[in-house]
Amino acid sequence: MSDLDRVLARLDADLDPALERLFASLRFRSISTDPAHAADCRACAGFHAADLRSLGFETRVHDTPGQPIILAHRREGKGTSALFYGHYDVQPADPLELWESDPFEPVLVTLPDGTRAIRARGAADDKGQFMTFVEACRAWIAETGELPVPVTILLEGEEESGGASLPAFLDAHAAALRADIGLVCDTSMWDRETPAITTMLRGLVGEEVTIRAASRDLHSGYYGAAAANPNRILARILADLHDDKGRVTLPGFYDGVPELPESLRAEWDRLGFSDAEFLGEVGLALPAGEKGRSALEQTWSRPTAEINGMTGGYTGPGFKTVIPAVASAKISFRLVFDQDPQAIRESFRAFVRERVPADCSVTFADHGASRAVAFDTSNPAFAKVRAALAEEWGREAAFIGCGGSIPVNLLFREKLGMEVINAGFGLADDRIHSPNEKYDLESFRRGARSWARILAALARAH
Amino acid sequence: MSDLDRVLARLDADLDPALERLFASLRFRSISTDPAHAADCRACAGFHAADLRSLGFETRVHDTPGQPIILAHRREGKGTSALFYGHYDVQPADPLELWESDPFEPVLVTLPDGTRAIRARGAADDKGQFMTFVEACRAWIAETGELPVPVTILLEGEEESGGASLPAFLDAHAAALRADIGLVCDTSMWDRETPAITTMLRGLVGEEVTIRAASRDLHSGYYGAAAANPNRILARILADLHDDKGRVTLPGFYDGVPELPESLRAEWDRLGFSDAEFLGEVGLALPAGEKGRSALEQTWSRPTAEINGMTGGYTGPGFKTVIPAVASAKISFRLVFDQDPQAIRESFRAFVRERVPADCSVTFADHGASRAVAFDTSNPAFAKVRAALAEEWGREAAFIGCGGSIPVNLLFREKLGMEVINAGFGLADDRIHSPNEKYDLESFRRGARSWARILAALARAH
Repeated sequence: MSDLDRVLARLDADLDPALERLFASLRFRSISTDPAHAADCRACAGFHAADLRSLGFETRVHDTPGQPIILAHRREGKGTSALFYGHYDVQPADPLELWESDPFEPVLVTLPDGTRAIRARGAADDKGQFMTFVEACRAWIAETGELPVPVTILLEGEEESGGASLPAFLDAHAAALRADIGLVCDTSMWDRETPAITTMLRGLVGEEVTIRAASRDLHSGYYGAAAANPNRILARILADLHDDKGRVTLPGFYDGVPELPESLRAEWDRLGFSDAEFLGEVGLALPAGEKGRSALEQTWSRPTAEINGMTGGYTGPGFKTVIPAVASAKISFRLVFDQDPQAIRESFRAFVRERVPADCSVTFADHGASRAVAFDTSNPAFAKVRAALAEEWGREAAFIGCGGSIPVNLLFREKLGMEVINAGFGLADDRIHSPNEKYDLESFRRGARSWARILAALARAH
Repeated sequence: MSDLDRVLARLDADLDPALERLFASLRFRSISTDPAHAADCRACAGFHAADLRSLGFETRVHDTPGQPIILAHRREGKGTSALFYGHYDVQPADPLELWESDPFEPVLVTLPDGTRAIRARGAADDKGQFMTFVEACRAWIAETGELPVPVTILLEGEEESGGASLPAFLDAHAAALRADIGLVCDTSMWDRETPAITTMLRGLVGEEVTIRAASRDLHSGYYGAAAANPNRILARILADLHDDKGRVTLPGFYDGVPELPESLRAEWDRLGFSDAEFLGEVGLALPAGEKGRSALEQTWSRPTAEINGMTGGYTGPGFKTVIPAVASAKISFRLVFDQDPQAIRESFRAFVRERVPADCSVTFADHGASRAVAFDTSNPAFAKVRAALAEEWGREAAFIGCGGSIPVNLLFREKLGMEVINAGFGLADDRIHSPNEKYDLESFRRGARSWARILAALARAH
């Protein structure tokens, strides 16, 4: 029995204690965007640091201006050295009333199709995912006393809230972080049977805009029409962001956005993606973005503007005839190819200012920015990882795009000069960022097995 | 010393106990729009019923499908019989953090200009106002053992929440309610020195619209652009409600809206209204309604559409990259002259439905409707009341319009066949429906004195 076979057998045998460890992590309310949960983030970081120390990782919890960052090393082994990245913070869990169980009390549930899943906030994004890598390391160490390759693990706590602390941290610790390849487990499979390596990710600009009009809330009877209504001003701005073809109207928005190369379009066409199935799964039918482009193209290779939140005036039960003093919205732009986040932020702010009457005011909050990224799949580590995934799943891993933004990808390349392999085991129906987030038990079990194989593959010379 | 002089002297002497009675009423959280406060509304009704009984009014608290209605009679005296209307319910007090003191713990404060005022939710709208009438009755009864004219007092508890119960109540009690004239104390003076009788009031249509798209909240990276975003759909609908001249775009919206008669325009011109002053008081400068019309015309005689509240997606601290499943808005239309509320509601709903994609859905909630109303000022009671106000204030009362809607006016005329005199003592800076609502102590004191004089005037033959 080879080392790898014993490692795989141990992973299967130790699934229950692995789940217990994951559940312990999921109980931490590590919501990084909400200052009320700072202590929960710190406690969660402490939990994972202790776990990594117990595996013999040289581990340190680094304070940052935001949430702590964990850095852990095991420097044995030869072959391709790896820097693994995960994030222990999670999205807010609201609306709480839509959860079928407490978002911070993980449970194992059987879904209508008979599959079993771990339900909790963060089950898939990203605690369940990064723990597949940690469990693979644990099994290697338990069976062989070491890892096949040198491994550094970086766990951050601000991925869901702009990630402001990470760039400076990478600058400060560049030497300790250098590795042959970056590994990230925060993406999805192509489908339940087909593993995937995500090679293109969209960038992100997060903006919050607040419009202020009168010095106080007003009675809409006494002031209606005469007094500026920030809800109306904001609605106009938000509506103006798209034209009737679904294109974003910001000046310069499409600068640096080429049409998809024919070769990539052909590869994606072979995936047999179905708009109807993709949208049907969430109760929709019509791609809502740029007319004449498929949902796959819209989400993988086209830039977008989305209103993530808006609020103004009375939104409680019943009715209140008020003209509010303030209205605000949170807007995110997803970027592709060579779009410049700073130029887009400035274009947006100018666009808004043009539409605010002279007697009203506007303020902006910057909720982070990252460029889009595409990796060089000719790097030999891609072939090794692809082979390891094929061994586990019995199918070639698809090279895919991703509509989401995982800013660490760009940071690793720009600051540490490395390519990154995004191999994740999430599924499209994991409901990340939504109520009843889940991670399939098979994603967790076979994800860990996949990483065990990948570590072995990286140790091989070719 | 005449009866009236003794009554006025008593009102001045008994100001402190009158304030205590008002404060006791203001402590009830009688927020009719919020089901959580149903018991508070009932308790407030009970308090006022007991007070009226103590004055010898034959008083009954009537249950309704909503909040209780108080009906109280004293049938002595000759001359013009009066039906007085007030409402004991109040608007919600949020945002609570903007109040300088507890909205339901009334306090007497000295304002920066040296005037004294009662600060509490409902101080002006409408508890302080209707208690001026009750205190006038109390003083007449204390000094003379009776009222100069037959008086019925009707206090309802749903004025701030659509007033659904009042129409059926008026139908059922029409005989008991019949009187020569209706009196309402829920409006404002022209300015601090000039009393006013409001002879035109706008109508109201209240609508709530809810747009649903995906079956759950989605990650805006994975679904952005491809999945319909209800925030974007709603923003488009709300923006489309006005054209770039500030006109409401609903088909048929201006049916039944004539230009202002020249005579009325001339009378309003004489008031010397200043847009700059009116808007400057609340920190604004530019009339935001139909271009080419003054703020006075916009608020008194032009119909409007206002977004009173809108919400969708994540609106908490920080940022959440979500595409929400639902977004909603509360919208009110103020009506003038002969606009038909039902036609406008239907036009709005058709307008919205046209703009909702086929794979999304929309639902509506009806938050009440009333037509606009203008009273016949040739009714002799107007001259009597105008004379009584001139005696108290030393100035002719202005006949003015009002942008707000007081649906009881139309109901009294349509169901009971009576004209209504709206004589109120509020001021433009009373912040009704806003944090730090107040009612000037002089409004309260001289309001009661005004009603004492009006009761005497109504008893006169001409």
